[in-house]
Amino acid sequence: MTTVTLPIDPLVHAAWLPAAAFSAVGSRRIAVVLEDDLSFDGLADPAFSPVAPTIMAEVEAATAAHGGALVDEAEADVLLAIELDCCEENPEAFCFSRTDGLVRIVASNPRGLLYGWFHLARLGKDAFTGPDVENECHTPHTALRMLDHWDNMDVHPVMGHVERGYSGGSIFFDHGVVREDLTRVAQYARLLASVGINRVAINNVNVGRLEMRLLDDLLPEVARIADVFRPYGVTTHLSVSWASPVRLGGLADSDPFNPDVLAWWQAAANRVWAAIPDFGGFVIKADSEGQPGPFAYGRTHADGANMLAKAVEPHGGLIHWRAFVYNHTQDWRDRKTDRAKAAYEHFAPYDGTFAENVIVQIKHGPLDFQVREPASPTIAALPQTSVAAEFQVTTEYLGHQKHAVYLGRMWSQLMQFPYWGEGSPTMADIVAGGHPLGDGTRIGGFVAVSNVGDDVFWTGHPFAQANLYAWGRLTWDPQADPDIILSDWALATFPEVSSEGAAALDAILGKSWETYEMYTAPLGVCFMVYPHHHYGPNPDGYEYTPWGTYHFADRISIGVDRTRATGTGYTDQYPKPWRDVYENLATCPDELLLFFHHVPYTHVLKSGKTMIQHVYDTHFEGLERVKVAVAAWQGVRDEFPADVAARIDERFAEQVRSATDWRDIINTYFYRHSGIPDAHGRPIY
Amino acid sequence: MTTVTLPIDPLVHAAWLPAAAFSAVGSRRIAVVLEDDLSFDGLADPAFSPVAPTIMAEVEAATAAHGGALVDEAEADVLLAIELDCCEENPEAFCFSRTDGLVRIVASNPRGLLYGWFHLARLGKDAFTGPDVENECHTPHTALRMLDHWDNMDVHPVMGHVERGYSGGSIFFDHGVVREDLTRVAQYARLLASVGINRVAINNVNVGRLEMRLLDDLLPEVARIADVFRPYGVTTHLSVSWASPVRLGGLADSDPFNPDVLAWWQAAANRVWAAIPDFGGFVIKADSEGQPGPFAYGRTHADGANMLAKAVEPHGGLIHWRAFVYNHTQDWRDRKTDRAKAAYEHFAPYDGTFAENVIVQIKHGPLDFQVREPASPTIAALPQTSVAAEFQVTTEYLGHQKHAVYLGRMWSQLMQFPYWGEGSPTMADIVAGGHPLGDGTRIGGFVAVSNVGDDVFWTGHPFAQANLYAWGRLTWDPQADPDIILSDWALATFPEVSSEGAAALDAILGKSWETYEMYTAPLGVCFMVYPHHHYGPNPDGYEYTPWGTYHFADRISIGVDRTRATGTGYTDQYPKPWRDVYENLATCPDELLLFFHHVPYTHVLKSGKTMIQHVYDTHFEGLERVKVAVAAWQGVRDEFPADVAARIDERFAEQVRSATDWRDIINTYFYRHSGIPDAHGRPIY
Repeated sequence: MTTVTLPIDPLVHAAWLPAAAFSAVGSRRIAVVLEDDLSFDGLADPAFSPVAPTIMAEVEAATAAHGGALVDEAEADVLLAIELDCCEENPEAFCFSRTDGLVRIVASNPRGLLYGWFHLARLGKDAFTGPDVENECHTPHTALRMLDHWDNMDVHPVMGHVERGYSGGSIFFDHGVVREDLTRVAQYARLLASVGINRVAINNVNVGRLEMRLLDDLLPEVARIADVFRPYGVTTHLSVSWASPVRLGGLADSDPFNPDVLAWWQAAANRVWAAIPDFGGFVIKADSEGQPGPFAYGRTHADGANMLAKAVEPHGGLIHWRAFVYNHTQDWRDRKTDRAKAAYEHFAPYDGTFAENVIVQIKHGPLDFQVREPASPTIAALPQTSVAAEFQVTTEYLGHQKHAVYLGRMWSQLMQFPYWGEGSPTMADIVAGGHPLGDGTRIGGFVAVSNVGDDVFWTGHPFAQANLYAWGRLTWDPQADPDIILSDWALATFPEVSSEGAAALDAILGKSWETYEMYTAPLGVCFMVYPHHHYGPNPDGYEYTPWGTYHFADRISIGVDRTRATGTGYTDQYPKPWRDVYENLATCPDELLLFFHHVPYTHVLKSGKTMIQHVYDTHFEGLERVKVAVAAWQGVRDEFPADVAARIDERFAEQVRSATDWRDIINTYFYRHSGIPDAHGRPIY
Repeated sequence: MTTVTLPIDPLVHAAWLPAAAFSAVGSRRIAVVLEDDLSFDGLADPAFSPVAPTIMAEVEAATAAHGGALVDEAEADVLLAIELDCCEENPEAFCFSRTDGLVRIVASNPRGLLYGWFHLARLGKDAFTGPDVENECHTPHTALRMLDHWDNMDVHPVMGHVERGYSGGSIFFDHGVVREDLTRVAQYARLLASVGINRVAINNVNVGRLEMRLLDDLLPEVARIADVFRPYGVTTHLSVSWASPVRLGGLADSDPFNPDVLAWWQAAANRVWAAIPDFGGFVIKADSEGQPGPFAYGRTHADGANMLAKAVEPHGGLIHWRAFVYNHTQDWRDRKTDRAKAAYEHFAPYDGTFAENVIVQIKHGPLDFQVREPASPTIAALPQTSVAAEFQVTTEYLGHQKHAVYLGRMWSQLMQFPYWGEGSPTMADIVAGGHPLGDGTRIGGFVAVSNVGDDVFWTGHPFAQANLYAWGRLTWDPQADPDIILSDWALATFPEVSSEGAAALDAILGKSWETYEMYTAPLGVCFMVYPHHHYGPNPDGYEYTPWGTYHFADRISIGVDRTRATGTGYTDQYPKPWRDVYENLATCPDELLLFFHHVPYTHVLKSGKTMIQHVYDTHFEGLERVKVAVAAWQGVRDEFPADVAARIDERFAEQVRSATDWRDIINTYFYRHSGIPDAHGRPIY
């Protein structure tokens, strides 16, 4: 077995893996048994897994730091062991047990064992106290728990180095080349493994000419990155351009029915897997926001995806085909076209025609990562297709990691959305192959856009680390309690902080998504941000643009009528009961009121308040909540490392400024339109 | 005398100086007499003027092309002659006469003679027909007829190569250096001389680090440009940064009271005038939109300007100190601060304290080159100061040279604005030293931002050449009829076009400013454009920004209350009668209604229409007028050179698209706010 050292750079923030996070387990006598009696049965020996040395290095480092020791099985009070038939042979699962003072983590594969190791660390002292536990099995909800990086190789003139990145430059690329020193990538891989994330696509779905070359002459550089991810069980993927055969290969077209195009992709796949035998596959944004795609040749998305799928299939590769397809040159005068309907219309008709290794990757809502959208009906519309739900850990519409916004509660709600009503299969069930009309073989997963960059705190706002952490935990277990996940994160990240400090963090972040919603675009109306960068309030920012994001505010009413009866008919895309719940004003949840209905400012909500008064009240209260959070922070800030505290001070100053803007501009916009004063006479301009 | 050849590049459009423009005069026998009997009196011999060889080259080229000849005085039917005591020794003036079949242009200096030559060319056959003319004197209205180029040396990441430039790159700079080949500059100089423009500042008033070096190691490159302008009587100026002593000179500050700072500028001036003996002076944007200035040291604009003036005074240099100073980080909630008041507040208190060679350069209106603003009260508020009125030939807010908009009528109206009522001194009078409270010694002039770039047609839209042409003609004679100027331009530029074609051009361009106003921001409300680039409709684009440009539209009313009685008090800055005319709703001109008053949509205009119906009617009619212009164009387009016609086709397509957007978005915005339908039931969304 090769030996490795843990990638730890003291100049970079340790996130939730400081040395102290291993103090409980690191003080024990630990045995690691990587051979199994069954290994001679012709199965690959787990001791030769690329993850095995990582486990050894983790255990050695933890015991060295905290007074424990690596010992033989007989002397151990902690045992990490391979049993090939454990956990139904799911290589990522592990079993936890505690009997007769011995704590055991057992897995069928070192990957599961590594996840079990981080589980032990997370449990801390609790791993070793309390009643016996027998065979508590931990199995990831789905095999696909992925992060997409929208990293460009060089600084893009409009989108910067990382598109929708708010944490500095790329950890992979710098000035047009793959970084020489990939230590940050190794640290990142370790953070991801510790929360169960197992796949990463390293480059932007908007693929430029330089990034195309990652498939070609720059492939050895991709292999270097894959080498760094591999010891942590993280598989590398690439985003590719549909136009690659033309721009890179010099072919006359990229028609999926052109045999030369398939041959080109087959050759490309052969090249990639030769360089990276455990490569994951390709992510593709086609016929979307100006990116090339099969439409140019009169072919469908299924035609395109299946051609690519055929090229990667012999290697066991996946094609992540994004469903973010809509008309981005819409006419605002046209109230019939509804961008929210687009993904369903483009993909639902092709259900059952996608190859087995195509994963249709669908945003969690029908629009674009807004603070409040209904769950996308498209996710439930493809029973014979593998589906991944796409989220954003980076906060494009949620404050650019300048605002403290914890998203665990939002994601949890969406993942557990029951598409056929209370108790029915959820979004999480569907992506794990549990569509009630499917046969259980079409399994996708969860993908999100990463929020990580070369910032010393990884995520710009140190508190935004909590979102990266929660993304891993929730994709592993969508039913996990997001509030407990937040506490776990805080405890691991700031072990030096008192219980008052931890309580303050909880007060600051726990309901921060709801707070952000209160002071920004209300009641599911969506957008109302500045075009392009998507930061700060601009109520009419998209109202007369080609992007298909309109609220139609006038002096009487506001909102988008998406009903079948009088509107765009979007509600028709939902199964029962939601198609009726959303359709009817009486049953539509208030928080989605303006997403589904165009209503007068005087409309009375279920709370008994008028809509306009609700807008005023939530906007005044939203800012007050931010100020309460700031006060809570100020009470405990000195418990935090000085550099963390300084960065958070700076972020809170901006959050207060920006939230004040939001409050006043949204309130003023609604007031100038409605003419209805605030019932409490607070200042509106 | 050195000989020169005319700068003519057949690959670049000839604008209004095609060979045919000289056909009438070029067919004559022409004598040029550059010596004068008085020259032995110790005056510089005009024959050694740098402009003299230009005259010879012009006459030689025209006669060679059109069958005339350069002859001795006795054989001539056209005489161009120097008489040192002519035209009150104004070196730019000339006298035209026609007696006994001899046409004479006489001037005290070759510069006047060159202007006379182009005057002859413009007259064409009319120069030689009709009754005798005796000593018709042509004197420019003011000595300062200038163009500012907002050219950057390299492509600026936000503002591009030419800030507010819509005609390609800079004719001076390319990729960070002064162009090797300055032929385009020479052609440009000739175009300018032909319409009387005599000064050019070559670089952007927002001065970057690279451009600062034009004062220093890049000075020889400026000298090369000045060498090209000089033969056409055009003086070169530079824009400079207030921070130059710090950034370029390494001083600790740029406090105008620091003797080292003055010494630095004196040394800089010595350097510049040593390299360019006839250099014009410095243009400066200080304490404006983030540019550094004397405020940082607690000094006034007068302190700053006078220090620079002292440095350039020994060389006869000028300081153009821009009055475009306002708070650009304003709070939109604050209705008391009024950006329109800023220039007056910053400069009027210092009248009488500016050095003689300081020219305070004031935008024609109080805001920023909008389609309709009142004349700036600041221009009339500085009787003891030299004042230049600043205009924009480039169409920042007037369609980016994608829309056909002729500005002669707008400029003419502003230049002739009578600040003390009908028949009183006008803006043109004031800048020429005619302020009624002044002593006549404080003389400024007219400055405008150029619309020229390295585009093959010079100005993007070939019809935008008319604005450059008109700028020269109107600065020479502000009382000239802008409609005749337009005809002169069309005749010279398109000599091949029939009278139907000329009539079509007149129909397309004659009232095009008024048409543009009809379909864009109405009734002096200003802005309603996209922030930053300023193209296309965005009614709330600036409403909640820090730029101080708000219209406060609500469901009842719109407009800015700038009255003394209830508003910002801006009307107080005007002398009588305007302070009262604008103050009172009953007398305020309708076209400035929303500039001065916040009024209900139901307000009845002098036309008898409600304001809202006027908005609808003008916006429907504005687009119709564009369509009529397009139809007129299509009827005659084949008479035009194919490349010109193709470019204009393309521009009209965009103008129709954009004007349709303007019509529908403005109408919809007003409709959604007011709730008042169009009286004629036309589509509003």
